[in-house]
Amino acid sequence: MNLTEMGINAKKAAMYLSQLGVTRKNEGLAAAAKALLYGKQEILSANRTDVVRAEDAGMSQALIDRLLLTPARIEAMAEGLLQVAALEDPVGEILSMKQRPNGLMIGKKRVPLGVIGIIYEARPNVTADAFGLCFKTGNAVILKGGSNAIYSNKAIVKCLQRGMQKADIRTDSLQLITDANRETTRQLMKMNSYVDVLIPRGGAGLIRTVVENSTVPVIETGTGNCHIYVDEGADLSMALNIIVNAKTQRIGVCNACESLVIHQAVAESFLPVLWSALKDKQVEVRADERACRLVPEFQRASEEDWETEYLDYIVSLKTVDSLDEAIAHINRYNTGHSESIITKDYEHAQRFLNEIDAAAVYVNASTRFTDGNEFGFGAEIGISTQKLHARGPMGLEALTTTKYIIYGNGQIRQ
Amino acid sequence: MNLTEMGINAKKAAMYLSQLGVTRKNEGLAAAAKALLYGKQEILSANRTDVVRAEDAGMSQALIDRLLLTPARIEAMAEGLLQVAALEDPVGEILSMKQRPNGLMIGKKRVPLGVIGIIYEARPNVTADAFGLCFKTGNAVILKGGSNAIYSNKAIVKCLQRGMQKADIRTDSLQLITDANRETTRQLMKMNSYVDVLIPRGGAGLIRTVVENSTVPVIETGTGNCHIYVDEGADLSMALNIIVNAKTQRIGVCNACESLVIHQAVAESFLPVLWSALKDKQVEVRADERACRLVPEFQRASEEDWETEYLDYIVSLKTVDSLDEAIAHINRYNTGHSESIITKDYEHAQRFLNEIDAAAVYVNASTRFTDGNEFGFGAEIGISTQKLHARGPMGLEALTTTKYIIYGNGQIRQ
Repeated sequence: MNLTEMGINAKKAAMYLSQLGVTRKNEGLAAAAKALLYGKQEILSANRTDVVRAEDAGMSQALIDRLLLTPARIEAMAEGLLQVAALEDPVGEILSMKQRPNGLMIGKKRVPLGVIGIIYEARPNVTADAFGLCFKTGNAVILKGGSNAIYSNKAIVKCLQRGMQKADIRTDSLQLITDANRETTRQLMKMNSYVDVLIPRGGAGLIRTVVENSTVPVIETGTGNCHIYVDEGADLSMALNIIVNAKTQRIGVCNACESLVIHQAVAESFLPVLWSALKDKQVEVRADERACRLVPEFQRASEEDWETEYLDYIVSLKTVDSLDEAIAHINRYNTGHSESIITKDYEHAQRFLNEIDAAAVYVNASTRFTDGNEFGFGAEIGISTQKLHARGPMGLEALTTTKYIIYGNGQIRQ
Repeated sequence: MNLTEMGINAKKAAMYLSQLGVTRKNEGLAAAAKALLYGKQEILSANRTDVVRAEDAGMSQALIDRLLLTPARIEAMAEGLLQVAALEDPVGEILSMKQRPNGLMIGKKRVPLGVIGIIYEARPNVTADAFGLCFKTGNAVILKGGSNAIYSNKAIVKCLQRGMQKADIRTDSLQLITDANRETTRQLMKMNSYVDVLIPRGGAGLIRTVVENSTVPVIETGTGNCHIYVDEGADLSMALNIIVNAKTQRIGVCNACESLVIHQAVAESFLPVLWSALKDKQVEVRADERACRLVPEFQRASEEDWETEYLDYIVSLKTVDSLDEAIAHINRYNTGHSESIITKDYEHAQRFLNEIDAAAVYVNASTRFTDGNEFGFGAEIGISTQKLHARGPMGLEALTTTKYIIYGNGQIRQ
């Protein structure tokens, strides 16, 4: 099927889904979950094909691990769909309704976005996760996964569609682009007539490609060059605890801490303790000159380090003379994701919250909490680092828009 | 000044404006309004230069009328700034604040977008209007107006900046691109590091250019191919009244009616009456075959007519056999702006509200109400016909985003 046909089908499916009640949608999710479990062997065998091809092509072990499916991972995908079914459906909520002086009743109603395109890498679990969130919010979805996972994705989509069919739901609510041609992906990024929004999920390169080439509106789910600033007079044991957590609790995630900013007043006492803890966790520190003088084992940071999201056992470290300098440094180099201050000072806490420009700004907590589940959304489609539409962790509401519904009785404009 | 320098300045101004209280912002707006009035002669004289150049270049009278400033129009611009000053400032509102089980207090706070780029045509009033709305919401703004209005825009911006200076406000809160080179506009559309959002204001061609070339997120303020559907059993005098209003009260605006959809059951009695009223207003009707048989003076519509926003004394007309057919026709050809049903039938009204995919869907009212002032927003920066971020008339809130502020006391992620 060509992309335009897929677009036409998706539009029709979106209209159908927008009128589907929550009970029917939840039945669809339950049936899709069941079909995933039922098709486990089929999915595992398709995944085996992808993994063997990837190994032959010399893919790194880390990437193969992301590609690999196990019975437990498939069960988790099915469980994820049931969790989404259990969440409240945001569609249909009336956000406001007011009567105007001329008698018009103007209401704002939450409705699905329509057709959502998801472009992602060779992570087959995204196939089921993204489908679940889009479907629950009444959106049709067109998936374009990494070509290294194509057999897995085909098998997963087949199972999900089989489930939908059992639940008597249009199977083109979910469509997968199976064509590995880059030109097809570029065409998807220009399908403004059929696709309402594109969400890229993956590394910085993928996201940049989509942002740069798409004429369809994009929600940028971005990289996280997240900072922790240790203020003058901070509780240093709290600071240590939070830094170790934010840097090492999970390394390859966007809300992990990548850069430390340390007030000079605490540097002398704090840096050696910090180094001892980070060394234990095999974390390399790339620091400015003043810090390197205090801890000779630190590496010297280059300008590039300040702007790097390592996703690795490395952290950059800058000393500053003031809160102002800390805020200026963070606002210059951050990626608008998550930033934290460790402080006992009331005014400094408030200023940091006010003046740092990021999706999530913390006082005395680990940046690792920027996550849909941790924020209480139940699930997330990604973390937006742009300012339009949604910012920060995106739950179901981020997959909806609104429309105005207006009740009149013959009003005309004067 | 080159564009990168402007971007750097705008970023700094945005940071400054984000911390400026509402009293100071209102002082700035009042001073800017005063400076516009004070500089009236200067602006008129600059505008005279633009108008003479435009006349020499053979610009149409309609466009010259948009370009032309008069003392009254300058006074209206100043009055507009004072009206924006009187509106409530949405910035700083806490939209929600919840405590999580781990004790984190997670709040969602409304904050400015940052730097807004506005690309518009030779309408100098937009210069002051757009500045007022962006400034009130704490955003720095970079304006790129039509090159035919460059002398007028320079004079207006000079006055506004003079006002800001009097009020002791950073004058680079407002910057105007004076370079008429198209390459400069293209560069603006790629300035993702400095510009948070672009809002094109103007005709379909301008908007398409921005959507197609911009990597900066765009809010599409679009065209309106607005329909009115007259249902079986509708109050035909109400229908006539609303159609004449929506089509002819103001011709060149995006919420004017461009297409009529008439149930066949009322066509025979309604179309002659409708034609008599529209003929009186010099409106040409381009209709399908069935309608033309009933009113031979109708022109025959082509496929192209169904998708045309005339902005003129022309309306297309299609007869249908059912509500289903009406909804399908409107969803196929509309531009997601404003659609209205005239009906007495409860279920038909509800189905139309639910199933029509548009920013504003009306029952028994003129489409002309889709407007920030009519919706009670006090002002509008445009009408969004896309689904991301804002949909329908955009007031001050549409020029803001949110950030999460999180109060912790040492929480780390398990």
